[in-house]
Amino acid sequence: MYKQIAFLGPKATFTDIAVSRLFPNDYKVPLSTIPDCLDAVNDGEVEVAVVPIENALEGSVNITIDYLYHEAKLPIRGDITAPIEQHYMIHPDNDTPSFKPEIVYSHSHAIAQCHKFLHKELKGVPYESTTSTAAAAKMVSENPDKKIAAIANEMAADVYGLKIAKRQIHDYSHNHTKFIVVSKQEVTFDDHLTSEQGYKTTLMVTLPVDSSGALHKVLSAFAWRGLNLTKIESRPLKTGLGNYFFIIDIDRKMDDILIPGAMSEMEALGCKVNVLGSYPSFKVGKPQMV
Amino acid sequence: MYKQIAFLGPKATFTDIAVSRLFPNDYKVPLSTIPDCLDAVNDGEVEVAVVPIENALEGSVNITIDYLYHEAKLPIRGDITAPIEQHYMIHPDNDTPSFKPEIVYSHSHAIAQCHKFLHKELKGVPYESTTSTAAAAKMVSENPDKKIAAIANEMAADVYGLKIAKRQIHDYSHNHTKFIVVSKQEVTFDDHLTSEQGYKTTLMVTLPVDSSGALHKVLSAFAWRGLNLTKIESRPLKTGLGNYFFIIDIDRKMDDILIPGAMSEMEALGCKVNVLGSYPSFKVGKPQMV
Repeated sequence: MYKQIAFLGPKATFTDIAVSRLFPNDYKVPLSTIPDCLDAVNDGEVEVAVVPIENALEGSVNITIDYLYHEAKLPIRGDITAPIEQHYMIHPDNDTPSFKPEIVYSHSHAIAQCHKFLHKELKGVPYESTTSTAAAAKMVSENPDKKIAAIANEMAADVYGLKIAKRQIHDYSHNHTKFIVVSKQEVTFDDHLTSEQGYKTTLMVTLPVDSSGALHKVLSAFAWRGLNLTKIESRPLKTGLGNYFFIIDIDRKMDDILIPGAMSEMEALGCKVNVLGSYPSFKVGKPQMV
Repeated sequence: MYKQIAFLGPKATFTDIAVSRLFPNDYKVPLSTIPDCLDAVNDGEVEVAVVPIENALEGSVNITIDYLYHEAKLPIRGDITAPIEQHYMIHPDNDTPSFKPEIVYSHSHAIAQCHKFLHKELKGVPYESTTSTAAAAKMVSENPDKKIAAIANEMAADVYGLKIAKRQIHDYSHNHTKFIVVSKQEVTFDDHLTSEQGYKTTLMVTLPVDSSGALHKVLSAFAWRGLNLTKIESRPLKTGLGNYFFIIDIDRKMDDILIPGAMSEMEALGCKVNVLGSYPSFKVGKPQMV
């Protein structure tokens, strides 16, 4: 049976690349915001949602983490990391050596990530933000008569029929984004993915108020069990400055003894502990059309 | 001698409220971005800059932290926490019982923070983002003929001559923002502030790569010395997913033994440790015109 997969749209965003890799045979439903995607799962309109949770340059996608903590408590069923490669693209009608755009469109993060290219090769050309890199590509495709260009990914160039005039214009070569798969049901992944998978367990931990050294004790609960943390991030609780919850990733599957033992210990310290998921972790290897 | 204080403008932003409280007698220089403010100090154009570093709802102001880590290494000389109170305001010419705006302007965070008010009392009225709450107030003041309204603070209503039609329309009453004072020189604060001050020391710690449990050991260095941390936040290093540095606040002044001892211990573990400052910490008590 084919599933419906909500994702942060429009078509040809970086999230779309992640979805196409994880669910090549299912129905993709592009929605316009992260809360829309998570609500669609919560309300039973789709089975699965895929949304970004962390970028190597920008950090956590706060809206995703906050929404999972405060609003839609949905389990994570998998994650996938994809390289973020930005290309400079124009309408094919404008593919002449003398073409110079009057405006460059892209998402504000992509513009920030391609600062050196813009400064060097398009000095003085103003840029404008769009809601996604794909929306920028769409605008260029719909306006062949305008002198405009876009910064977007390879899938967007393909979907919107644009010519890539310069490839890989991003400043940092280490840029990746991690996306999570959330669903109320178990999700099975295709065999072609499982060769490269790892496992992860994600906890959300709220420390007791005014307990000095509580985070140190929490980390001790993992350390003396030899549980390795691959991520720890703080987010404000929205109850006042200085009150946080923590997202903690452990690099292994939920077991019967070690992780439950660490959780009981944290609860005995007065922490609130939620398991957000224990799930396989994938990578989009080479940037590719999928 | 009067100092020049750069701050995140325009006039009457929440940062302006913090500056007016800390430096009532100095020259205020509104600049349009956080990097502009920090660069102005770095380049010697002004003596002091005041910029936001953390909000109770939105979390850290990443651009401030990243810029202090990666670009301008300037010491923190003080911080001040101010309540964020949003009011709904209109041009006095439009102060009639039947007035209904066609657009509400404000900063995107303020719009998000007043979601319930907008949903209940201005249902269906579209809103548009401005670069600051003060910019929204300015726009309303300059367009008495247009049916528009703004969400901004009390200082903005006063500076731009607007009528507050409804006070305190924010959803969360615990909202505060913390601002930092950076300067190459020592900064002395007025006596009227010092009665309520605390002290803080801020460190930036980069963990050694691939060292499992390093954060636990770092926190141990503080815990067994009885050093109380009031904040620990992670930020990506921009070298790849999963590589972080940490901002750590200790609730006391730099001393000769305890904090230097913890720092040496962290360095022995392979951490890179920078002191961002040891400084007095202030509060804007009641929301007020200052």
